[in-house]
Amino acid sequence: MQPEQTPALRALYQGFEEEHIVPLWTQLGDLMPTHPTPQAVPHVWKWDRLYDLARQSGDLVPVGRGGERRALGLANPGLGGRAYVSPTLWAAIQYLGPRETAPEHRHAQNAFRFVVEGEGVWTVVNGDPVRMSRGDLLLTPGWHFHGHHNDTDGPMAWIDGLDIPFSHQNDVGFFEFGSDRVTDYATPNYSRGERLWAHPGLRPLSGLRDTVSSPLMAYRWEHTDAALTEQLLLEEEGQPATVEQGHAAIRYTNPTTGGDVMPTIRCEFHRLRAGTVTPGRREVGSSVFQVFDGEGVITLGGTEHRLVQGDLFVVPSWVQWSFAADTQFDLFRFSDAPIMERLHFARTHVEEAPR
Amino acid sequence: MQPEQTPALRALYQGFEEEHIVPLWTQLGDLMPTHPTPQAVPHVWKWDRLYDLARQSGDLVPVGRGGERRALGLANPGLGGRAYVSPTLWAAIQYLGPRETAPEHRHAQNAFRFVVEGEGVWTVVNGDPVRMSRGDLLLTPGWHFHGHHNDTDGPMAWIDGLDIPFSHQNDVGFFEFGSDRVTDYATPNYSRGERLWAHPGLRPLSGLRDTVSSPLMAYRWEHTDAALTEQLLLEEEGQPATVEQGHAAIRYTNPTTGGDVMPTIRCEFHRLRAGTVTPGRREVGSSVFQVFDGEGVITLGGTEHRLVQGDLFVVPSWVQWSFAADTQFDLFRFSDAPIMERLHFARTHVEEAPR
Amino acid sequence: MQPEQTPALRALYQGFEEEHIVPLWTQLGDLMPTHPTPQAVPHVWKWDRLYDLARQSGDLVPVGRGGERRALGLANPGLGGRAYVSPTLWAAIQYLGPRETAPEHRHAQNAFRFVVEGEGVWTVVNGDPVRMSRGDLLLTPGWHFHGHHNDTDGPMAWIDGLDIPFSHQNDVGFFEFGSDRVTDYATPNYSRGERLWAHPGLRPLSGLRDTVSSPLMAYRWEHTDAALTEQLLLEEEGQPATVEQGHAAIRYTNPTTGGDVMPTIRCEFHRLRAGTVTPGRREVGSSVFQVFDGEGVITLGGTEHRLVQGDLFVVPSWVQWSFAADTQFDLFRFSDAPIMERLHFARTHVEEAPR
Amino acid sequence: MQPEQTPALRALYQGFEEEHIVPLWTQLGDLMPTHPTPQAVPHVWKWDRLYDLARQSGDLVPVGRGGERRALGLANPGLGGRAYVSPTLWAAIQYLGPRETAPEHRHAQNAFRFVVEGEGVWTVVNGDPVRMSRGDLLLTPGWHFHGHHNDTDGPMAWIDGLDIPFSHQNDVGFFEFGSDRVTDYATPNYSRGERLWAHPGLRPLSGLRDTVSSPLMAYRWEHTDAALTEQLLLEEEGQPATVEQGHAAIRYTNPTTGGDVMPTIRCEFHRLRAGTVTPGRREVGSSVFQVFDGEGVITLGGTEHRLVQGDLFVVPSWVQWSFAADTQFDLFRFSDAPIMERLHFARTHVEEAPR
Repeated sequence: MQPEQTPALRALYQGFEEEHIVPLWTQLGDLMPTHPTPQAVPHVWKWDRLYDLARQSGDLVPVGRGGERRALGLANPGLGGRAYVSPTLWAAIQYLGPRETAPEHRHAQNAFRFVVEGEGVWTVVNGDPVRMSRGDLLLTPGWHFHGHHNDTDGPMAWIDGLDIPFSHQNDVGFFEFGSDRVTDYATPNYSRGERLWAHPGLRPLSGLRDTVSSPLMAYRWEHTDAALTEQLLLEEEGQPATVEQGHAAIRYTNPTTGGDVMPTIRCEFHRLRAGTVTPGRREVGSSVFQVFDGEGVITLGGTEHRLVQGDLFVVPSWVQWSFAADTQFDLFRFSDAPIMERLHFARTHVEEAPR
Repeated sequence: MQPEQTPALRALYQGFEEEHIVPLWTQLGDLMPTHPTPQAVPHVWKWDRLYDLARQSGDLVPVGRGGERRALGLANPGLGGRAYVSPTLWAAIQYLGPRETAPEHRHAQNAFRFVVEGEGVWTVVNGDPVRMSRGDLLLTPGWHFHGHHNDTDGPMAWIDGLDIPFSHQNDVGFFEFGSDRVTDYATPNYSRGERLWAHPGLRPLSGLRDTVSSPLMAYRWEHTDAALTEQLLLEEEGQPATVEQGHAAIRYTNPTTGGDVMPTIRCEFHRLRAGTVTPGRREVGSSVFQVFDGEGVITLGGTEHRLVQGDLFVVPSWVQWSFAADTQFDLFRFSDAPIMERLHFARTHVEEAPR
Repeated sequence: MQPEQTPALRALYQGFEEEHIVPLWTQLGDLMPTHPTPQAVPHVWKWDRLYDLARQSGDLVPVGRGGERRALGLANPGLGGRAYVSPTLWAAIQYLGPRETAPEHRHAQNAFRFVVEGEGVWTVVNGDPVRMSRGDLLLTPGWHFHGHHNDTDGPMAWIDGLDIPFSHQNDVGFFEFGSDRVTDYATPNYSRGERLWAHPGLRPLSGLRDTVSSPLMAYRWEHTDAALTEQLLLEEEGQPATVEQGHAAIRYTNPTTGGDVMPTIRCEFHRLRAGTVTPGRREVGSSVFQVFDGEGVITLGGTEHRLVQGDLFVVPSWVQWSFAADTQFDLFRFSDAPIMERLHFARTHVEEAPR
Repeated sequence: MQPEQTPALRALYQGFEEEHIVPLWTQLGDLMPTHPTPQAVPHVWKWDRLYDLARQSGDLVPVGRGGERRALGLANPGLGGRAYVSPTLWAAIQYLGPRETAPEHRHAQNAFRFVVEGEGVWTVVNGDPVRMSRGDLLLTPGWHFHGHHNDTDGPMAWIDGLDIPFSHQNDVGFFEFGSDRVTDYATPNYSRGERLWAHPGLRPLSGLRDTVSSPLMAYRWEHTDAALTEQLLLEEEGQPATVEQGHAAIRYTNPTTGGDVMPTIRCEFHRLRAGTVTPGRREVGSSVFQVFDGEGVITLGGTEHRLVQGDLFVVPSWVQWSFAADTQFDLFRFSDAPIMERLHFARTHVEEAPR
């Protein structure tokens, strides 16, 4: 469908180049495909290998002002070697050695941490020390100061999720250094934010203004586990509770609005009953999953991958995925769905069950 | 400022009457006062007297289809003998004898129950049995079927709050009978709604559509008490947490939105530290308080009333009120504030602290 | 279903009276009917008779500070002689003699004026003079100062609509006197608000904050007429445009939100093609219509009324109504629908077309 | 701040590469700068040169199915030769020869056209023919079918704006071919959408559901010009109307919400009085301006550019810009501000006026 390559056309194309012009007709198919054709590819990262590299980094790389964090970013093989797990999302394993402190800073980028194993680190968010334990989701929304310190004699690792690629791509980032130490080395069981906000359906009268991101900086495993357990029990009792047969799931929300915890990142937790197979699903936007417990198989764009605790994988936009759970299978998920929904690009396709 | 009473004017006024006309100039001051001048008056109802009348009703008045409920409505002395505690709100003590059942029905009116003492009754809301215990707030939002049954050999009483006066005045009510018995006599500790929804900040993926009223039918005392306790502890630690010095408070919310539990009724719980005196406050709209625990004094439109557990009082629109707590003083409150806010009539005036 | 009248019961009822208690079981049917059973009744007021009384008032009753307005309120025959056209709405004819001024004031109540005939008066809203001409809707939202002056040697009359009954009933009103004269006697064709805001789909960058009520104080007949004319033309061309066959209609909106012009009052204009008969309709909430042009019949709760220009009628909650248009039939309508919708009491029932 | 290059570190980095891992500490400054440091650069494209290239393309390149559009995309010199005017926005000049048709298609990407000169083309949006004339803004929101045809014997060119870079980067695009011809060759003065929706403050009752994008496909110059003219007149009368002294501006809005016309693209029109100099301004997100009329200078990141009718320029994120108007100076603007606001990344800095 391209015009004939005449001298006149070549001259025209030369003119385009001089004037910083690119014609649509030479690149329409790439720019405007019939459905999303991501450069990002599905990929699985194995936790034991990640952890090993993180541990080695702990020996070789200091943490402190400048580098700021000992974080290893998952680099999607389709995205040219940048530490982008998808075009919008950053996922990393972060490692803090015994008694180490990662200094305070803040940035426009939204961030969270999820803990698949270990304990002993507190993240201090706007001065409020937040314990990090297995199964917890911890938030550091945009422009909140935060630093971490390890209060024990052992190391600890966890995953970080951020919207760094989106922010970098769209030139929205700001960054500021804070204290070189964390501002409060206390190690309380519960942060002040939780003490104010982690009461189901109850809102402090001192907090009636809705906030862009959740005022609750920690979502504890005990609550997540209880919610999922109840969904499966209710399902057994014949009640509507699960998202589909054998598949319990919760979304982490901002209690001031009932919406997502941060403007760009959705966090969820999924639990599959042993033996459950989920239908193939495609969604606009990208997701990262981490196995929290149990074993199973993810079929990702037609390829099966066996997963165990800690393993991470990315689902690029419109790539089909489905689970088969060998045991009870628990997975943490985060995605860019709030971006897609707020900008009205969200679409979902669920494969019909075979007869 | 009225025109002279001439024969011509009398003839004109006669014409008005024939044509169902009333001139503004004869009634402007009453219709459009410089500030709200409610017909409703401040009033206190003593719990021991209410409970005694309710108990006598239990002996003399059956509960069942037709009368529907053994409920004694608080009738504001300024509102002409109708069972209106204010122009918008209904408040009643309801009494259920041993093993009695109040049959199921539903209505457009929004309702809740709050339990100041006793236990042993389950309210069944759209088929979901909900335990009622001291300190609990239980919802039956508009058009939800509900009935109650007493599973014990003792009586139980509680308060009901509804928007009956508002609904009646504005002709919005619908009513339908349901089962003559409750549809489920099970007596679980926690309702299915709680098992799905009472996990702080967590939302089931099976419940992503926002609802007009809360999907959580019970707000348990253990959570309310913990939230208030933490606010006062945080205040002691020098942290912002209370609504004003010595005054902890929570609002009950719909977890799908962070807003009020029902479209017309706000529910809150307030705890004052012993010795706390609150500044005089006036608000557009009316409120009802019930003492849950402790003792203190309410100054209501300039008159002091000593209050003990169970006592109820109404604050009409723009009447000034303030508390003085003798002990730790716990009060449940409900009001028509969502009406005022949604229609943009809300105003508040807080007296400045004396120097 | 009432308990037997024993001495004990009489003693109990005596106790209720002493304690300001009214039992639910004696009044349930009245308080909570199966559907709305308004005290307000359907009623028609004839414009020629209203205008005649207004003109007489012009001779006998001064306008000025104190009485404030020479306004004759329509008093629903079911509402006990108060100037309430419905439980929520006030409707009046207001009359201003040659060169008269109605002084400025403001109130929490929301108000509008609609002009069925005449011209020559300017209403000055927060200092902005707004011309009043046939077919125009003019707003004076809550807490906006407003006064009127007649710039001609003839009288002028129009209708006022307000939420006075709602405000009075619920004790939300505030009132303040302003200038005894209007603050600006200029007589521009278009108000400043129109010059800023009456450009379709265009919003001034100086007005990016959404407002509770419309910033546009005048909706001109030329626009309303054009919109309705186009809807009927589009219908003739086979395009979806009308609300039902032969029935064009627009809603007046706040351009900052696309929603109703004021928080409590909806304004609409309806045009029926000659010969159109609309299906019977019931709605929760009350409406007032005024015939602007043409002739037809309204069937209101089963009774037919013939209507000509200027005639007004009220439709109480849940009373069935339908139109039959003899000529092209133009009607202005206002209602309390925003109250019903914001508080989630709205319901509509439309009679199915007979076969 | 980088760790010492030891053999162990090299081995570690080798491990990273094998496992598709990139450490944060090697790239923090690039990924998370202290403020946005866009790759995109400020750039000006001269209309006469663009038009000349478009005209030559008209001679050499056919328009039709496959290439779809004869559109020349502005390629930001900092963005590696792709037709991205900024990381989020596409801007192109499109050219249609006499009697040509650009076939129908639809895509998830949002699009608009703005006409700086010429007439005679109709764009057919979801079957509704929309005239394109000088000064008009025409919308084709995501997933609306659209094609264009030239009804005259002369050529016509205009600019297209889309969110192609954003959509491509984030893998959200869908695309579908429609009719090879436009579905309606009628050439009405006003589209059906305008006839329904272009009445200030009036909403058809057949269109009460809010829409993601504006239902109004054309914003006519006559309205834009009138709105800006009135703002400057009001300013002369001493009234608040302009966004700053000598600077009138409107935003194009969706009349169902009062918000932006499409979820990802904001459109505005600015008029500066001759002699006006605007303060330096930085904003998160990128904008494209086109001069519609008059002459002036834009200072863009410290460099002055003289501009005449048709000239286009891009302002990357956080680059400072200010205008100096030699004549009355009219500019059309579009930007990705809705993305920044919906995701809460928006920030603005305005230089204080020098004393």
